[in-house]
Amino acid sequence: MKMLKIENKFPGKDITLDDIKTKFPLVAKKNSKHFSIFKISGVEFGGKKIPVFAGPNMVESEKLILNIAKNVKKFGASFLRGGAFKPLTFPYRGNKYYETREKGIQWLKKAKEIYDIPVITEIMEEKHLSLICETADILQIGSRNMQNFPLLTACAKTKKPIMLKRHFGASLRDWLGAAEYILLEGNKKIILCERGISAPHTHRSTSRFLIDLQVIPAAKEVTHLPIVVDPSHATFWRPWVSSMSQASVAAGADGIMLEVHPDPEKSAVDPLQSINFYEFKKIMQNLDKIAKVKKRKIL
Amino acid sequence: MKMLKIENKFPGKDITLDDIKTKFPLVAKKNSKHFSIFKISGVEFGGKKIPVFAGPNMVESEKLILNIAKNVKKFGASFLRGGAFKPLTFPYRGNKYYETREKGIQWLKKAKEIYDIPVITEIMEEKHLSLICETADILQIGSRNMQNFPLLTACAKTKKPIMLKRHFGASLRDWLGAAEYILLEGNKKIILCERGISAPHTHRSTSRFLIDLQVIPAAKEVTHLPIVVDPSHATFWRPWVSSMSQASVAAGADGIMLEVHPDPEKSAVDPLQSINFYEFKKIMQNLDKIAKVKKRKIL
Amino acid sequence: MKMLKIENKFPGKDITLDDIKTKFPLVAKKNSKHFSIFKISGVEFGGKKIPVFAGPNMVESEKLILNIAKNVKKFGASFLRGGAFKPLTFPYRGNKYYETREKGIQWLKKAKEIYDIPVITEIMEEKHLSLICETADILQIGSRNMQNFPLLTACAKTKKPIMLKRHFGASLRDWLGAAEYILLEGNKKIILCERGISAPHTHRSTSRFLIDLQVIPAAKEVTHLPIVVDPSHATFWRPWVSSMSQASVAAGADGIMLEVHPDPEKSAVDPLQSINFYEFKKIMQNLDKIAKVKKRKIL
Amino acid sequence: MKMLKIENKFPGKDITLDDIKTKFPLVAKKNSKHFSIFKISGVEFGGKKIPVFAGPNMVESEKLILNIAKNVKKFGASFLRGGAFKPLTFPYRGNKYYETREKGIQWLKKAKEIYDIPVITEIMEEKHLSLICETADILQIGSRNMQNFPLLTACAKTKKPIMLKRHFGASLRDWLGAAEYILLEGNKKIILCERGISAPHTHRSTSRFLIDLQVIPAAKEVTHLPIVVDPSHATFWRPWVSSMSQASVAAGADGIMLEVHPDPEKSAVDPLQSINFYEFKKIMQNLDKIAKVKKRKIL
Repeated sequence: MKMLKIENKFPGKDITLDDIKTKFPLVAKKNSKHFSIFKISGVEFGGKKIPVFAGPNMVESEKLILNIAKNVKKFGASFLRGGAFKPLTFPYRGNKYYETREKGIQWLKKAKEIYDIPVITEIMEEKHLSLICETADILQIGSRNMQNFPLLTACAKTKKPIMLKRHFGASLRDWLGAAEYILLEGNKKIILCERGISAPHTHRSTSRFLIDLQVIPAAKEVTHLPIVVDPSHATFWRPWVSSMSQASVAAGADGIMLEVHPDPEKSAVDPLQSINFYEFKKIMQNLDKIAKVKKRKIL
Repeated sequence: MKMLKIENKFPGKDITLDDIKTKFPLVAKKNSKHFSIFKISGVEFGGKKIPVFAGPNMVESEKLILNIAKNVKKFGASFLRGGAFKPLTFPYRGNKYYETREKGIQWLKKAKEIYDIPVITEIMEEKHLSLICETADILQIGSRNMQNFPLLTACAKTKKPIMLKRHFGASLRDWLGAAEYILLEGNKKIILCERGISAPHTHRSTSRFLIDLQVIPAAKEVTHLPIVVDPSHATFWRPWVSSMSQASVAAGADGIMLEVHPDPEKSAVDPLQSINFYEFKKIMQNLDKIAKVKKRKIL
Repeated sequence: MKMLKIENKFPGKDITLDDIKTKFPLVAKKNSKHFSIFKISGVEFGGKKIPVFAGPNMVESEKLILNIAKNVKKFGASFLRGGAFKPLTFPYRGNKYYETREKGIQWLKKAKEIYDIPVITEIMEEKHLSLICETADILQIGSRNMQNFPLLTACAKTKKPIMLKRHFGASLRDWLGAAEYILLEGNKKIILCERGISAPHTHRSTSRFLIDLQVIPAAKEVTHLPIVVDPSHATFWRPWVSSMSQASVAAGADGIMLEVHPDPEKSAVDPLQSINFYEFKKIMQNLDKIAKVKKRKIL
Repeated sequence: MKMLKIENKFPGKDITLDDIKTKFPLVAKKNSKHFSIFKISGVEFGGKKIPVFAGPNMVESEKLILNIAKNVKKFGASFLRGGAFKPLTFPYRGNKYYETREKGIQWLKKAKEIYDIPVITEIMEEKHLSLICETADILQIGSRNMQNFPLLTACAKTKKPIMLKRHFGASLRDWLGAAEYILLEGNKKIILCERGISAPHTHRSTSRFLIDLQVIPAAKEVTHLPIVVDPSHATFWRPWVSSMSQASVAAGADGIMLEVHPDPEKSAVDPLQSINFYEFKKIMQNLDKIAKVKKRKIL
């Protein structure tokens, strides 16, 4: 096999602004000051406000989601988050609360109406689009579906705002390529969300991921899209959520997603990462102070 | 925030046979000698034979695929591989050959009929199932869809054999969890396929991935499913394909997937990783010799 | 080869407080409030003050280091940093400024005397101990020597304070094991320093490392030692230094190390990561504001 | 902070033949057929023979090492390996066999004389050079000292052959840079040794590392130095050693290092990775068959 001439034109791993401008023209910044600012349900993204999405990993019951909606709103959350349809590593649901599906969506709707708080929830299948769009103000594409391109395109066509979570094995370039699919449909309200990556060292056996805050300045160097961080999933460990949330805001995050549950240790899914109302209140106050240093605000 | 009692019951990262037996009962080995052996289109998997899947990254044209089918069959391939529907990082197809979709499937069908060679091709959407099932002998789930659970379930229900590629960021546990979804539908003909992982060092800027051969003994310790390696994607670099194919067979791989193109440097997609007919013939001969040491055979 | 009984008693990768208490008793926290606070050259570590180490990658000349010492002190640095002996990936020094060795140490000494600022510099060999100890207030163990145990022990015996940089491939457990060697000699003034890790995605071809801020809460969960972050080396990219410095302080870092050079693009080593005096001044002001939110201070 | 012009001239992560030729001229291949072949104690490296280094992790006692020397020689090992001085993550040696130091070297010497087998052992400090050089035929630089440049230079000056283990966090480029330091002293008998890397997924909690076989063709593309693999350390798990040894030879390894112990589960260090004499004999026979396919030989 003869030696090939080595050309660096198929890198695939790293990105430069030139590469992004050529391959992902809609995602790319037009100039160094270019940052998208847009409103979703009256909440501004990419501007002074740093919106917080808060709620349980899973919409376990009507009672639970109403209680959470009331409390996270009270302490300053802009959006209620909660999973009804979920991509579970295990196909078995011994625990009936693992997925609440249609019912979960109905409970979210009720919480939204009663407490007047917009909702973000995950979508996994095109066939659930009309059901979910009726309630959701933002469609969340989960990490595992980041490069499920038909799903991205179908969601984009609804013109609903979309939050695109980064796959834990994806490069920034892979992620921006996926966002380009959405922008191509004319849907401009896209929020990127970092949620932890597979890395050699995550520091405890209960933590699957490593939070990647370097991706914030890296993304802002090449794209105009706002970027949110989910320190709950990224750390997988409650005691680290507060410091990593503060670090995210200091690093320039445009939003924070937090798992909140009235009794975290009894949470149906991921009991090690949720925080309770009291911890949420304290975190929100601290985040607001950090945000002010950045000339932004949380509350 | 009080210190939590540290419990190791939500590891998520590593696997043990006990964990697999409990969480993924259908995937788990029943005893240390338990390995699935089954036939697909007359070709045995998991037994003495180590089938080779060969063909182009993309079914670029009828002429190309007929030429390739003839040649890979002549040199010992058991299956013709070729992409018609493809998950592309870029939404733009300046090059008309990037995806040939329905036409590509028709060309594969013709190649299959003329040269009597079974076909494996990727499926990305449930709505293409009937079209693709008509031609494909094995449905390939690509890395990016490894945890697209609705797609897995839909494919599983057709009872077509399935090859499940590992996501480049997925743990063995994530991968086996996805296979469990397929087995749960009563579909027992599943082949795992390792295709390279995101790792700190891949040794050149043109190589996005690192081949993970340690996953072969690791998988065989806990699951009865056969495991195939795709050294073309894993290395992303033609000069490394031959040695990594041999290493895969020596490591215990139950099959090898290779990208073959009559003129690799003119290949529409991934021109750096394809091998030509002459290289393919030589690799097959070498692999057969390694296989014989393992009391198996390629040819 | 018979199946081994799987025991989880040799993990090696992850840590728990119990593991640390048993294996690294001197490094381990005695209780959840246990954090070491100590003074070096009158500067408190682990307390309210967050000291900043600033200076060039390399002590290129007397003129340069005097200029830098004056300016970093003016803008609030507590320590002057600068390399004289350096572990270079390349054994060739086409550029005479790559290592200035004994001369570099003399220049540091002069800067220290004139501007009354304590000094931290790297030590690579036991035989340089007396030379370097005469000038340095803190001995820096570089990443590549993190597990050079004879060097650690020799440095520890001098009772000089030591800053132990994390190897870019080391786990938190490896790192704490190395610190235990130092504590074992009765040397209690140890500072840990995170400087970026080898990870699958670092976001640009010029960045070798990924900053790991999750290691801050992880370390503080098990050890009483203060932890500093070096965002210059961690990012390898000037435009990311400011945001990552702020994120480090917000994450709970007990100190910050920054590369400062009057004309960064002409820096002899690592020209892409140094910041100039103006940028340094601005970063210090911003860090102080973040520190105040944490009830600490930079200035 | 103004946008910098992005230049790709300080990559640091990836290598090309051009980069190696410029930065590491002695390590670089002069042409595509350039591979070093040399003899150590009558054993050829880089040629048809694939030498095997075998022995215990630790030279626990005279009786043990004599028993092992006799048996590994009988089954075809070319070199006796065994640690006397060792870089231990823990500074405590509750178990007196953890390091046997001077005594261990004496026992190795006796084994070498009685069974006429050359010896490889690790060196950690310049001050042990004369002691170790008296017995060792090859000086082993351990992973943790891969970039301990003063140690490399001191060892190189003795003109003893050197085996340079790759650090588990090091890139191929870092590794070759370290080898250049040795070649620069006129010492041409250098063997590279891959021993597993820190990676996101290692497949079990008892395995710290992932074997990187892709580095074999990658190294052979740019350097003329022979490369050995140590599947015992790389896998950290006995049941995977056999298949990964075979894969290493198939991948083109120029030597294999194996941990052998008469009673592995009672091994003082790393009991999970050693193999017994019977397993060693079987592995040697299998490796020889794979080697023959590569037109080489183990026995």
